[in-house]
Order: sequence, then C-alpha cells, then structure tokens
Amino acid sequence: MYFDDFEVGYRFETGSKSLSEDEIIAFARTYDPQPFHVDRDAAAASIYGGLIASGFHTLTIAFELILGADVWNEASMGSPGLDEIRWKKPVRPGDTLRVTGEVTEVQPSQSRPDRGRVIFRYDILNQHDELVAYYYAIQLLKRR
Amino acid sequence: MYFDDFEVGYRFETGSKSLSEDEIIAFARTYDPQPFHVDRDAAAASIYGGLIASGFHTLTIAFELILGADVWNEASMGSPGLDEIRWKKPVRPGDTLRVTGEVTEVQPSQSRPDRGRVIFRYDILNQHDELVAYYYAIQLLKRR
Repeated sequence: MYFDDFEVGYRFETGSKSLSEDEIIAFARTYDPQPFHVDRDAAAASIYGGLIASGFHTLTIAFELILGADVWNEASMGSPGLDEIRWKKPVRPGDTLRVTGEVTEVQPSQSRPDRGRVIFRYDILNQHDELVAYYYAIQLLKRR
Repeated sequence: MYFDDFEVGYRFETGSKSLSEDEIIAFARTYDPQPFHVDRDAAAASIYGGLIASGFHTLTIAFELILGADVWNEASMGSPGLDEIRWKKPVRPGDTLRVTGEVTEVQPSQSRPDRGRVIFRYDILNQHDELVAYYYAIQLLKRR
C-alpha cells in the first residue's frame, strides 16, 4: 500500500511471535544488561518478580512483526521518528506477542509531491490480549 | 546515582562504539529487513544512497552506551517509556556513535516515597559530532 491508500482509522494485524528465556537474555546481554533482563535470580528478587524482556527487545520484535505483515513496505521511505512509547506490562519468557496497527493521521508532504507521512498507533499485545506496550510511528511513504 | 542525586541540567557523556557493515546487516536481517538496511545494491539505489543502520539499531546501541556509562544503573527500576524519538541523519557503516545525556525533569513519585522519575534527553552523535538521533527517556529510579 502506498501513501494514497491509507485513511484515518485503517487497521491491520500482524502475525505473532513467542519469546524464549534464552532469546530474552541474549538480546539483553548485548543491548540492555540490567539484572532483571539477564539474571534469573536478581530478576526474581526485583520489583518484577522474574525475568522480563528489555523494552527495546519488545519494540524490535513488534517492528519485525509489522514488517512481516507487509502492509506499507513497498512504499517505505523510512521513518523520521516515534512518539509516546509506553511499556505497560512486563513481557516474560514464553509470552507470545502480536501487534495491531491503526492509522491516526495522514499528511501529504507540503514540499515534496512524491511522498507523505502516515502516523500509525501500534498496540503490542500478549497471548492474553493484554496491552504490553504501544507507540506512535511516523512512516514516510511514497505516493502512487 | 539515585533519584535524589539528579537535578535539571545534570549532564553526562558515554563512551563510543563503531558499527561495521556486517553488524548493521545482521541486526536488520532479524528486526528491520528493509532493503536500505540489508541490501547494499538496493540501498545504493534508494534515497539514502547506500546502506544505513536501522533506527532501532541506533537506539539499542545508544542504550548499550548509556548503560555502559553506569550513571543511574544501581538505582534503576526500569522505564515506563520514551518520547519524541527522532532520527535526524543516517548512520552508515564505519560510523562511531556516542551519547550525551541531560536531565530535563525530576519528579518525585506522589504515591510511592521510595522512587521518582528522572527525564533524560539523549543526543546520539557520530564521529563528526553530528546529531544522528535524539530522544527523551523516562527513568524510574530508587531514592536514597
């Protein structure tokens, strides 16, 4: 889908992906080695009561799922940014994540007639349909 | 440092990290396989004129550097969210990134006297001191 194909309220859903404890620890060892992401015992003693995924891990998996849905990929010119990322519930080993996307704004470029911005709200849900995180993404898309 | 040790305007700098082409492609293959992140030829033909790092890769490297600076790690209770992530310039193979952090807000918790929120603005800079990205992070920290 290209810029012109989107309107406010358009929705899509991604596939899903499960996270193992090993994957949570491996990602966090490199990018976010806080004790509650990499150390099972320290995590059990923390306010989280057990290992939880790095919030950055949750975001990157969500983005992997969003690209896998292949909704706007062909028209993508990248993204200038994200807004209001909020982590609402911990993601734990064995959880299965999926994402719903909804268009909240559609802005043709004032200066460049070949492109526009579509703003998506992405809700990241677990296998209990609980919201674990959400964010808004500004997506630069080619026009038809 | 604990919540009580921070005031608005407090600044710190991280170490630096270089990104190879292989690292850029490996990260993007898993999390962000858009052509301009994983395919040298497609990237050359894109608006970016060559391979660029996934914005999520830039963010995770920045966070790795921030944790490496070990400023608030001991007091960390995690983060509820990030605001206004903006990618300003492409990050290319061979670039070296570093981060400057500055406290923009300090908010003791109203309901829980053992903690507070510190908001940091993080600027991600390359080896030419160009701003490649910035964001605001809400950091939950224990009080002394």
